[in-house]
Amino acid sequence: MSSIRPIKHARHFVYNVLQNNQYDSFFSRYIDYFLIFLIITNVIAVIAESVDVWYYPNQIYFDVFEDFSLIVFSIEYLLRIWSVIEERPSKPSWGQRWEWAKSPSAIIDLLAILPSILNFFVVIDLRFLRILRLFRLLKLTRYFASMRILLTVLSKERGSFQAVIFILFIMIVLASSGIYVVENHAQPEQFESIPKAMWWAVVTLTTVGYGDVIPITTAGKILGAVITILGVGLAALPAGILASGLANELAQRREEMEQNFRELLLDEDVDLVQNQARVEAIRCELGLAKEAAQDILLQVIREQRLEKRERAVEKKKNFCPHCGESLH
Amino acid sequence: MSSIRPIKHARHFVYNVLQNNQYDSFFSRYIDYFLIFLIITNVIAVIAESVDVWYYPNQIYFDVFEDFSLIVFSIEYLLRIWSVIEERPSKPSWGQRWEWAKSPSAIIDLLAILPSILNFFVVIDLRFLRILRLFRLLKLTRYFASMRILLTVLSKERGSFQAVIFILFIMIVLASSGIYVVENHAQPEQFESIPKAMWWAVVTLTTVGYGDVIPITTAGKILGAVITILGVGLAALPAGILASGLANELAQRREEMEQNFRELLLDEDVDLVQNQARVEAIRCELGLAKEAAQDILLQVIREQRLEKRERAVEKKKNFCPHCGESLH
Amino acid sequence: MSSIRPIKHARHFVYNVLQNNQYDSFFSRYIDYFLIFLIITNVIAVIAESVDVWYYPNQIYFDVFEDFSLIVFSIEYLLRIWSVIEERPSKPSWGQRWEWAKSPSAIIDLLAILPSILNFFVVIDLRFLRILRLFRLLKLTRYFASMRILLTVLSKERGSFQAVIFILFIMIVLASSGIYVVENHAQPEQFESIPKAMWWAVVTLTTVGYGDVIPITTAGKILGAVITILGVGLAALPAGILASGLANELAQRREEMEQNFRELLLDEDVDLVQNQARVEAIRCELGLAKEAAQDILLQVIREQRLEKRERAVEKKKNFCPHCGESLH
Amino acid sequence: MSSIRPIKHARHFVYNVLQNNQYDSFFSRYIDYFLIFLIITNVIAVIAESVDVWYYPNQIYFDVFEDFSLIVFSIEYLLRIWSVIEERPSKPSWGQRWEWAKSPSAIIDLLAILPSILNFFVVIDLRFLRILRLFRLLKLTRYFASMRILLTVLSKERGSFQAVIFILFIMIVLASSGIYVVENHAQPEQFESIPKAMWWAVVTLTTVGYGDVIPITTAGKILGAVITILGVGLAALPAGILASGLANELAQRREEMEQNFRELLLDEDVDLVQNQARVEAIRCELGLAKEAAQDILLQVIREQRLEKRERAVEKKKNFCPHCGESLH
Repeated sequence: MSSIRPIKHARHFVYNVLQNNQYDSFFSRYIDYFLIFLIITNVIAVIAESVDVWYYPNQIYFDVFEDFSLIVFSIEYLLRIWSVIEERPSKPSWGQRWEWAKSPSAIIDLLAILPSILNFFVVIDLRFLRILRLFRLLKLTRYFASMRILLTVLSKERGSFQAVIFILFIMIVLASSGIYVVENHAQPEQFESIPKAMWWAVVTLTTVGYGDVIPITTAGKILGAVITILGVGLAALPAGILASGLANELAQRREEMEQNFRELLLDEDVDLVQNQARVEAIRCELGLAKEAAQDILLQVIREQRLEKRERAVEKKKNFCPHCGESLH
Repeated sequence: MSSIRPIKHARHFVYNVLQNNQYDSFFSRYIDYFLIFLIITNVIAVIAESVDVWYYPNQIYFDVFEDFSLIVFSIEYLLRIWSVIEERPSKPSWGQRWEWAKSPSAIIDLLAILPSILNFFVVIDLRFLRILRLFRLLKLTRYFASMRILLTVLSKERGSFQAVIFILFIMIVLASSGIYVVENHAQPEQFESIPKAMWWAVVTLTTVGYGDVIPITTAGKILGAVITILGVGLAALPAGILASGLANELAQRREEMEQNFRELLLDEDVDLVQNQARVEAIRCELGLAKEAAQDILLQVIREQRLEKRERAVEKKKNFCPHCGESLH
Repeated sequence: MSSIRPIKHARHFVYNVLQNNQYDSFFSRYIDYFLIFLIITNVIAVIAESVDVWYYPNQIYFDVFEDFSLIVFSIEYLLRIWSVIEERPSKPSWGQRWEWAKSPSAIIDLLAILPSILNFFVVIDLRFLRILRLFRLLKLTRYFASMRILLTVLSKERGSFQAVIFILFIMIVLASSGIYVVENHAQPEQFESIPKAMWWAVVTLTTVGYGDVIPITTAGKILGAVITILGVGLAALPAGILASGLANELAQRREEMEQNFRELLLDEDVDLVQNQARVEAIRCELGLAKEAAQDILLQVIREQRLEKRERAVEKKKNFCPHCGESLH
Repeated sequence: MSSIRPIKHARHFVYNVLQNNQYDSFFSRYIDYFLIFLIITNVIAVIAESVDVWYYPNQIYFDVFEDFSLIVFSIEYLLRIWSVIEERPSKPSWGQRWEWAKSPSAIIDLLAILPSILNFFVVIDLRFLRILRLFRLLKLTRYFASMRILLTVLSKERGSFQAVIFILFIMIVLASSGIYVVENHAQPEQFESIPKAMWWAVVTLTTVGYGDVIPITTAGKILGAVITILGVGLAALPAGILASGLANELAQRREEMEQNFRELLLDEDVDLVQNQARVEAIRCELGLAKEAAQDILLQVIREQRLEKRERAVEKKKNFCPHCGESLH
């Protein structure tokens, strides 16, 4: 037991530093900064390696940096999977570890190290390996609160996105088939088949319009114009849905915050303006900005005051129904 | 009568499997999956047929698959029109069938088989026939809930769309006429007439910008710049309207769900959290996601509790300050 | 006086047919249809005249049609200015006519005929005259309700539009100056001066991207990339503002309709569901769709019922404060 | 003391004219107009100077105008920093001046004159100096109210913008790396390295699509199509967020105005319709349009009337059904 205690202490410390969002110390913050810095420099390294005049003279440094990064990310992964059981100490540890290993952020962590480790056993094409190392970029999502709100919106609005992608798919199929029929004779090279015509359809419907494939017959130009006018709306639709979804999500969270404050103000006569810790806890959970939280709090207090005054004005006109005297 | 009964039973079964959305059995679900799969493979076949190196060696398989699909979709259409009278058994059957045959989804079903059937009697250009077979793609709309919401929004916001298309039409006419006047002398080939200049106007106003027709005079460039700046907003407008219309529609449906829950909670002291069947029925009718329904339900219950508590707090203070008796 | 009466009657009839939106007869509707048809055929004629192979063989028909249109639009203008005084018969007639002649729709009407009339006295370049005849297109705005809502939104959101256009102007100036400095040496022809570089800036910031002028130096490409990423948002901004403004305007009108209905239902115990004339009047004034009006009406009635029931449930628990008996 | 008084008076006058927004005289307004005019002509001069055929023949006039502008803007800056202490006369003057000099608008004012002043001591490349003189354009922000609202929205939504820029950055890195791997062999010139491929990624993801670099392999086209479809939404996202943020901000300000009016109407029985000065003060503080303020005011008054009437209707029925006495 004497040997287990320090291990448990260490594991709890590691858990707090790496996994616990509530825990916030000088050390844990610097570990976060170091990891963010390492991820970004890794991405820069991958990009720089593709430039021959930068890579070949400094190959040794790039390789050392890659080895160092791989070791750090591997240790990070192992420490995370080892310490995660501290989250709910009562549960069986291996089940909890397996649970964590299946979570999206754990899979990202694994994908960030797996290709480079595999490379020791199997030879992977260097160019392809570089791309796989870019998965490390996705590790950044853990450190940005607004990213998580965006992902929530994406998952909430997935019904709308499905509908839009489905329509976009129908539009591409119909547009490429139509242009294939009218342009195939005039430009047998460019509009050889429907799959080839799809390149034109995608480039046009998304309004990129490179200009490498263009309808030249009058019928093709008329069809192209109709497709473009109809398509423009659709291509910009996902952004519109995402933007209004984001606005909606933030509005809902603000409302929930408001309700939370109202309940608290009703409950105890706690002075929320003073008791910032409580406000902060609610704010963190909902992922809103500090400024917004203060605005809402003041708004709620102000509204309650207004209601009180309205009620007071109302009461002035009341008389006790029992003794007939005015209530004031 | 003994011969009519089994027919009626069969017809009711077919109706349930094909037409009845409320009915949900293992068999009906697999029929749906099979039809969705057949539609998608048909579309892929049409696209693949346009590639000569894929089509000519396998012509026989493509033809067999087309014949098979045609038979399946024809049987589906006949079964639908035969069984649809089970919806309202009291009404005259032929009138009901005619009613159904005029509905949009029935017309799509008919368009999916008609060209191929006509092909037996009249010879249609093969390339054109293929495009007509793509109408089968539209049969998919029946199976996606979010598609129907999108169509509802499109029909609700059709006033705004009319206005935007009308303005876009005015913009195209004015832009092409203007550029025709200023560029006609410099590029008599490209800006030969207003209809020819319209190709430039559409490509520019939708921001596709192929680059095949470009103003080269200074006046043309200034006019082009002004048109582009004004036009950019307009081209993206339909998407914006659709997106905010969609957000609006969903918000309205959520509100209606909220009101439904509130009425139910007031009516009986039914525990809606337990009675999920009732919640599900309301949810299905409004076409919302399961998650959203649960969120709204919890929100309604929470609000009612808060209101109750606020009323209780209010009551506590309701004693006459003069005689000390309760005001009730 | 016996000669004035029939004139007054005729004037009132003409006013009703041409100007009065409330007046709706078989005849006035067909006059509207005829004018809309004439405007559209005029626009088509202007476009067709620019095609030499269509114009020269049929010059005589085009000229006759133009003369006919000019006469009709001139008579329309004269009848409108003559009959407009019927709107407020008590006011001085010439002042009222002058008032009308200054209104936007009257100016559009005048611009539709003025260039062709001037052409009798001064010889105008034929090509330029055609463009001026396209002003007739704007006469259509009178006949579309959704157009007027759009214009209201444009005028309400003009503050936001000013801000966006101002920023877009700053962006264009800064982008063209920046690219001029870095690309001037490499492409002295294309980026000869800031005004010339502005063509690139406009084409890029609006995402049209013809590809006729492209930065080729590394510095130019980096600057171009930064400008493009920042600019994309700005170019699409007006559409977003317009779309959310439109949604806002419609929501506000729906709310006003709701309040109107609520007031009416409180006032008299009028059955609004039966009394459709009243509902229609409110609907017309606010320019909303018929379907939306019915939805809102049913919603208001339903809400009032719910409120009544909630109050009834509340009352059940009440006892009379005077005699102590339950209130039921 | 007799010499200090006139200075103090002068300083107060200068402060009112240049810095005080509340102060509004004929003179201060014309000073504003003059400064706006000078800024705009300066920008036009910088642009015109880059055109050789305009600059060289008139070099002397351009130089005189630049010297004049520099003197005016320098005097303006000195007067502002001298008079700003009148804002809060009780505070120490140098601290206040330092405070002002660090504010964004003061930094813009300084940047507008600094490069030209530095040019007297150090020789700056003429072309670069011109760009720096364009900073004067930013001085305009002071004079536009809607600009300030836009900046508020930008700062409030900065969380969302961070998320979007972060995703856009990830998309660009992944897209350019992917296309580099598949197109590098086919077009070693164009897709030489990831940084070079980034030019294609930016041009495509922002839908500019110049057409100078285009994938030509089948794999490249498929990857390009997928990237384009996913990217279109993202590039338009900032505009969507900004637009809905702007709508949100304006809605919030309208609501705050409403609450202010409600409080005032409750407080005193002030007739706000008459007392326009009070309405104007609230309106100015919130930066809303005059029309909107009047609309809201009328709406609040109307709602209060409706509420009063509803309460009156309610009271009428408040008699005990048992003893017939009023419940009050």
